Amino acid sequence: MKKLRAGIIGASGYAGEELVRLLSRHPEVELTCATSRTYAGQSLGSVFPRYRECEVKFMEPVASEIAARADIVFSATPNGVCSAMAAELLDAGLKIIDISADFRIHDQAVWEKYYKMEHKAPQLLAEAVYGLPEVYGEQIRKARLVANPGCYPTSILLPGTVLLRAGLVESTGIEAICLSGVTGAGRKVDLQYIFPECNESIRPYGVTGHRHLPEIEQELALAAGVPAVTMNFIPHLIPVNRGIHSTVLFFAKDGVTADTALDALHAAYDDKPFVRVLGKGELADTKHVTMTNMCEIGVAYDARTNRVIVSSVIDNIEKGAAGQAVQNLNLMAGFEETAGLL
Amino acid sequence: MKKLRAGIIGASGYAGEELVRLLSRHPEVELTCATSRTYAGQSLGSVFPRYRECEVKFMEPVASEIAARADIVFSATPNGVCSAMAAELLDAGLKIIDISADFRIHDQAVWEKYYKMEHKAPQLLAEAVYGLPEVYGEQIRKARLVANPGCYPTSILLPGTVLLRAGLVESTGIEAICLSGVTGAGRKVDLQYIFPECNESIRPYGVTGHRHLPEIEQELALAAGVPAVTMNFIPHLIPVNRGIHSTVLFFAKDGVTADTALDALHAAYDDKPFVRVLGKGELADTKHVTMTNMCEIGVAYDARTNRVIVSSVIDNIEKGAAGQAVQNLNLMAGFEETAGLL
Amino acid sequence: MKKLRAGIIGASGYAGEELVRLLSRHPEVELTCATSRTYAGQSLGSVFPRYRECEVKFMEPVASEIAARADIVFSATPNGVCSAMAAELLDAGLKIIDISADFRIHDQAVWEKYYKMEHKAPQLLAEAVYGLPEVYGEQIRKARLVANPGCYPTSILLPGTVLLRAGLVESTGIEAICLSGVTGAGRKVDLQYIFPECNESIRPYGVTGHRHLPEIEQELALAAGVPAVTMNFIPHLIPVNRGIHSTVLFFAKDGVTADTALDALHAAYDDKPFVRVLGKGELADTKHVTMTNMCEIGVAYDARTNRVIVSSVIDNIEKGAAGQAVQNLNLMAGFEETAGLL
Amino acid sequence: MKKLRAGIIGASGYAGEELVRLLSRHPEVELTCATSRTYAGQSLGSVFPRYRECEVKFMEPVASEIAARADIVFSATPNGVCSAMAAELLDAGLKIIDISADFRIHDQAVWEKYYKMEHKAPQLLAEAVYGLPEVYGEQIRKARLVANPGCYPTSILLPGTVLLRAGLVESTGIEAICLSGVTGAGRKVDLQYIFPECNESIRPYGVTGHRHLPEIEQELALAAGVPAVTMNFIPHLIPVNRGIHSTVLFFAKDGVTADTALDALHAAYDDKPFVRVLGKGELADTKHVTMTNMCEIGVAYDARTNRVIVSSVIDNIEKGAAGQAVQNLNLMAGFEETAGLL
Repeated sequence: MKKLRAGIIGASGYAGEELVRLLSRHPEVELTCATSRTYAGQSLGSVFPRYRECEVKFMEPVASEIAARADIVFSATPNGVCSAMAAELLDAGLKIIDISADFRIHDQAVWEKYYKMEHKAPQLLAEAVYGLPEVYGEQIRKARLVANPGCYPTSILLPGTVLLRAGLVESTGIEAICLSGVTGAGRKVDLQYIFPECNESIRPYGVTGHRHLPEIEQELALAAGVPAVTMNFIPHLIPVNRGIHSTVLFFAKDGVTADTALDALHAAYDDKPFVRVLGKGELADTKHVTMTNMCEIGVAYDARTNRVIVSSVIDNIEKGAAGQAVQNLNLMAGFEETAGLL
Repeated sequence: MKKLRAGIIGASGYAGEELVRLLSRHPEVELTCATSRTYAGQSLGSVFPRYRECEVKFMEPVASEIAARADIVFSATPNGVCSAMAAELLDAGLKIIDISADFRIHDQAVWEKYYKMEHKAPQLLAEAVYGLPEVYGEQIRKARLVANPGCYPTSILLPGTVLLRAGLVESTGIEAICLSGVTGAGRKVDLQYIFPECNESIRPYGVTGHRHLPEIEQELALAAGVPAVTMNFIPHLIPVNRGIHSTVLFFAKDGVTADTALDALHAAYDDKPFVRVLGKGELADTKHVTMTNMCEIGVAYDARTNRVIVSSVIDNIEKGAAGQAVQNLNLMAGFEETAGLL
Repeated sequence: MKKLRAGIIGASGYAGEELVRLLSRHPEVELTCATSRTYAGQSLGSVFPRYRECEVKFMEPVASEIAARADIVFSATPNGVCSAMAAELLDAGLKIIDISADFRIHDQAVWEKYYKMEHKAPQLLAEAVYGLPEVYGEQIRKARLVANPGCYPTSILLPGTVLLRAGLVESTGIEAICLSGVTGAGRKVDLQYIFPECNESIRPYGVTGHRHLPEIEQELALAAGVPAVTMNFIPHLIPVNRGIHSTVLFFAKDGVTADTALDALHAAYDDKPFVRVLGKGELADTKHVTMTNMCEIGVAYDARTNRVIVSSVIDNIEKGAAGQAVQNLNLMAGFEETAGLL
Repeated sequence: MKKLRAGIIGASGYAGEELVRLLSRHPEVELTCATSRTYAGQSLGSVFPRYRECEVKFMEPVASEIAARADIVFSATPNGVCSAMAAELLDAGLKIIDISADFRIHDQAVWEKYYKMEHKAPQLLAEAVYGLPEVYGEQIRKARLVANPGCYPTSILLPGTVLLRAGLVESTGIEAICLSGVTGAGRKVDLQYIFPECNESIRPYGVTGHRHLPEIEQELALAAGVPAVTMNFIPHLIPVNRGIHSTVLFFAKDGVTADTALDALHAAYDDKPFVRVLGKGELADTKHVTMTNMCEIGVAYDARTNRVIVSSVIDNIEKGAAGQAVQNLNLMAGFEETAGLL
C-alpha cells in the first residue's frame, strides 16, 4: 500500500523533532520532506541525534518543492510563515496542519492585536478548522486546513469546553493558572533559558495578554454559547523538560459538585482514546502523561467558595503540539485516530 | 559578652538543619541544645554533614533538660508537640518560637478542625503572637511565645496584608495559587517524595482544606478589618529543592492599578530589610531569593478582569521557616533584626 | 493468532512498570499475570497510573498459580527470590527471564561472596544463559533460563567485549567510571533517595566491591580469552530519572587508535538494531537514548596515555533492564528481535 | 577604618556575580568598580537581580579608570584579556587576582598550545603565583599577581598534591574523572546549554586535551618532584547548577591504604579552614559544599587493583572560582583567611 507522503515546514524545533519521531513509526505515513533555513542541506538525523537513522535532508522552504514531495504538510514555523505559504500549498492540492498560531483565531482583528502583525491569508480564516479532535472531530475529517491548538489551550479546553457546554459552570470568573516545562518555550537559545537560569527557578511570565489567551477565550465562549469570555490566564515556567499542568477555576452552577463535573467529563471522554478522566479525589500529575498523547483530568470542588477546580495535564510537545497534529492527520486522512500514537 | 543560649526541639528536619546553619554564624547566639528522638546521642554534625563541625549532641526532648540549657527555644516538631511542652518551658523562664502550627490560629475550634486533634495548650492561644515581623514587629519584641508563620502564608501575607490594609483590593474573591519546592514537604521518607516521583513532575495537592488555609484567611481578615475571608488556596509540588512562588489574585478597588499597589508596597517595605518590591512590570523568580531570608514581590494589573496579580517568592526554609524564626529571635532578644541573616 | 502469555514476578518496581508498558504494546505477547506481595489484589493500573487501563491484578507469588497463567515469566524481584522458584517454573514448562542477579554469575562461590547469601538453585547455573543478545544471541534463542544483565554491565560490555575479542585493547588496567540516574536504585523509599537529597547532588557509591563488578569481570574475561579480569568499577548517582553513562578506559594495543576501535564496533554492530556506534569525535549523551532500547557508543583515543576512552549510554530501565528482557523474550520465542521495542 | 577598594574586570558572568555577593558581605573590602562591555552603564543590581541593592555601575574595561578606583582587581574575563592589561595595572600599583587562565601555566609554550593564542605578558609568568592557598599560602601573601586555579584543578590538586608530596602514590597512571554542574560552562548562551538539552542528560566532553589538563599536570608534577606527569582528565556535564565531583585514581605505593592516605590528608588539612577530610569509608557529595568555599575529600582503597580512589568535591563557583579568589585576596591583603567566606 502506498503511504501518505508528509512534509514538515520548519522542522528544526522541538515540535519538529517530535514529528520526526512520531511519523517514523507511523504505519501509514512516510516523511518525505522537511524544511529548515538553518539546517538546509543537512540530514534530519544529524540535527536530531535521537533519530540518526532519518536520512531525509532539510531543504529550503519553497512551496513548489514541498508540493512536489508531499500530500500533507505540518507547519511548525514561527507565526506568520505558514499563512504566507498556505494558499499556494492548498492550491497545489496539499492539506495543511498548522502548528503555529496563524489560523487559530477566527477574528482577524483579534489575531493581529495579539500577534502584532498583519495576517497574510485572511481569506482562509473562515475555512480553517480549530484542530482539537475531541471537539471538532467531524470538521477536521473534512478539512483542508487545520489550526493545531496551542499547548496551554489544549490543556484548558479539553475539560473547560465540556463543563461549559454541559451548563455546569459559569462562563464568567474563569481563571487558568498554568505551569509549563521549558520545552514549551521552544528550542530557543536565550539567556533566560540556559540551564542555570531555569533549574531551581519558578517564575510566572506573560500574566496579562499572553498570545494563547484569545484562543482559549474564543473556544470557551463557543462552548458556553456566549458572545465572549473574559478570563485570567497566568502561565509559569517550571524546571521540567516536558509537561503542562493547568489548574482551572470555575464557578459552579447550582447543585454542581465534583461528582457532577466528573460525570460530564466521563460522558464526553470515556470513549475517546486520548483523554482520561481521573477518579474522584484524584488530581493530575504531568509525569503520568509525558511522552504520550494523553490528557488527564481531575476535578475537585470547594464548597466554601463554590469553585470547581480542574487539574489537567498534557505533554506540551505531544498532545500540546506534534502528537495532536498527528491525531489531526489521522482524522484528515481517514486513518485510525490512534495510528502512530500508542 | 555572654551569648544568648538557644535550643532546638525537633532539630532533625530541614528547618532544624537550617537553624543549625543560621545559629552557627549568628554573632549573638549560641546553639546549646537540640532534641531528636530519632538521633538522640548523635552529634548534629554527624546527622547534617554540611555542618560536620557542630558538636552539639541530640538529646531526648525533656522540658527540664532543655530549660537547664537554653534561654530561648525553637520548636520544629510535628504539630501537637510544642503545645504539650510550652507551658512548662515558659514557666521555667524560656521564650519560645514555635515553627510548628500549634499557636498560629487564634480560634481553637478552627485549629482543631484543620489539625484534627485536641489543642494541648488553649490557655496560651491568646498570648501567642503571630510571628510575621513585618506585620507584628512590636508585639514580637515583647512576646514570650511566638508562632512562626507557615511558608505559604508568609509568601501570601507579606503582599496581601498591605494591599488589604491600604484598602486597595477586595477581601472577597481572593485566590492564591502556590508552587513549592520539595523541601516544603519536610525531610519525609515517602514514595511520593523519592527523586523519580518528583523529578519531571508537576502536581497540585491539598487543593481544598490545606492546613495553611485558616492561617492565611485569619490574617487577611485582620488586615482587611472584616470578620472573615473565604478564599481558594491551591498548592502545587514543583521539582526544585527550595522556593515558593505564590500567584495571588485580588479584585482591585476603583481606580487601583499596578502602580497604586506598588506604591503601597513600597511605602510598607522600603525600610524593611527582608522584603523587596520589584519594579513595574517585573515578576518574582524563586531563584533570586533561595538561600536568603528575602521576600520579593512583583505586581501586575489586568484591566480586562480588574485583577491585581501579585507574584511573591520566598525560600520556604528561610523566610518560610528557620530564617524568619531567627528574625523573630532577633526582635525578641533586642538584637539587630538582620543579625545572622545577611 | 494466539499470543504468548507472559507473567511478571515482582512487578511493582520501575523495571516491572516498564515491562507493563512494553508488553502492553507488544504485538505477539499478552500480559496475563503479575505478582506483588505489597499490592496483591490491586490492579496494575491502580499502582502505575501511567497504565491505568491495565486491568491485570497483582497476585501473590505462587509458582503453581503463575504456571497456570503464563508461558514465560520475567522475574523482577529482589535477589534470591527467582532462584527459589525457578526449578518449579521450569519443570512446569515455563521459560524464565530473570532480571534479578540470581543467574548472572557462573561461579557459585563468587556469587555468594558478592550477594552475601547461599544460592538456592546452583544446579541451574550451568544452564542459565547470560542475556546480552548482541553477544549470546544464539544461546538465548535456545534457552529456558536467561539471566538478564545488570544495567551498568550492559553499558560496559557492549563496547568492551567487542574491543577485547578483536584484540585491540589490553585486558589489564581497565577502569569503568559510571554515572546512573536515580531509578537505577529502584523504587526504593529511603532518605538518601528523596528528592532534596538527590537533586543538586553528585556522589559516588560502592566504589569497591559493587555487586555488578563480578558480572562485568566475568564477561570481559570471556571476551578476552583470559582466566580473569581485575578492574575498577566506580558508580556515581546523578540527579536524572533515567540513563547510564559509562566512561571506560582501556590500554590500546600497538597501533590501535579511535579509528581502529570504531571500525571494530561498526563491524560488530552495524547490523544490530539496538546498538549505534557514533561518528569519530562524537561522545555519547544519555538523553539520546532515554525511553529507548538503544545503546550508543562513542570512542576517543588519548595518544599521550595510550588510552582508548569509551563513552557508552543506555536507558537503565530499558536496555539496562525491561527492554533488554523483552529483546530476550523475542529471541526465545522466535519473534522479530525488535518486536514491541521500536 | 578605610576598606580595601576592589574592582572586578569582566563581572557579568557567574564568577563575577558570586564575587559581588562575597564582596558585599566582606567586612574589610569595598567593591568600587566593575567592568563589562555588554552591560556598561547599567548597575550591577539591575543585571544580577539577587543583588539589586548593588549600585556600582558597570564601566568599560579601561586600565587607567580601574586603577583610579581600586587597590586590587579580580579579572573574570575570557582568556587573553587579563594578560593584556596586567602590566599597566601592576605598574599603577594594583594587585591582581586573575580568575582566567592567563597566568596559571609556567611554560609559555604549553599555555600557547592549549589556549591557541599568543601570550600577551610572558614577562609576568615567572612572577605570577598559582593561587591555591593550601599549597602556596606563603607566596600568595607576598604576591602582586595571583593566578586563581581552575575549578577542576582545585578539586583534584587539593587531595592529589598531598598524596604525591607524602610519597604515598605513584605519579604515573593517574586518572581524574570529573563531573561538573552547568554553571561550570559559564553564563554561556548556546544551544547545548539550554535547559532541555542539559536536564535529563549526562555527557562527557573534552576527554582529551581539555585546557585544565596542563595546569593539573604541572602542579601534580611539582608535588611529586618529577619533571612531568601525564594523566587522563575526563570531564562530564551533569544537570546540577553548582558542584564538581572528582574521582581521582592513583596507584598506591607499597603498604599504602585508605588509612595511610587519610592520615596524610588529615595532617595537611585539619588546621585549614576550607578543606574537610571525611571519615574512613565516607565519600564526598557535592550537595554538602555547594554555596560554600569548602572542599571535602573522601578516600577508598581497592586492594584488588591497588588503587587509592579519591572522591573530592567543591562548589565550582566558590572554591573553584570566586570564593578561592577572595581567599587569595585575604592572604594578599593580610586579612583573616576566612574573612567574608563563612
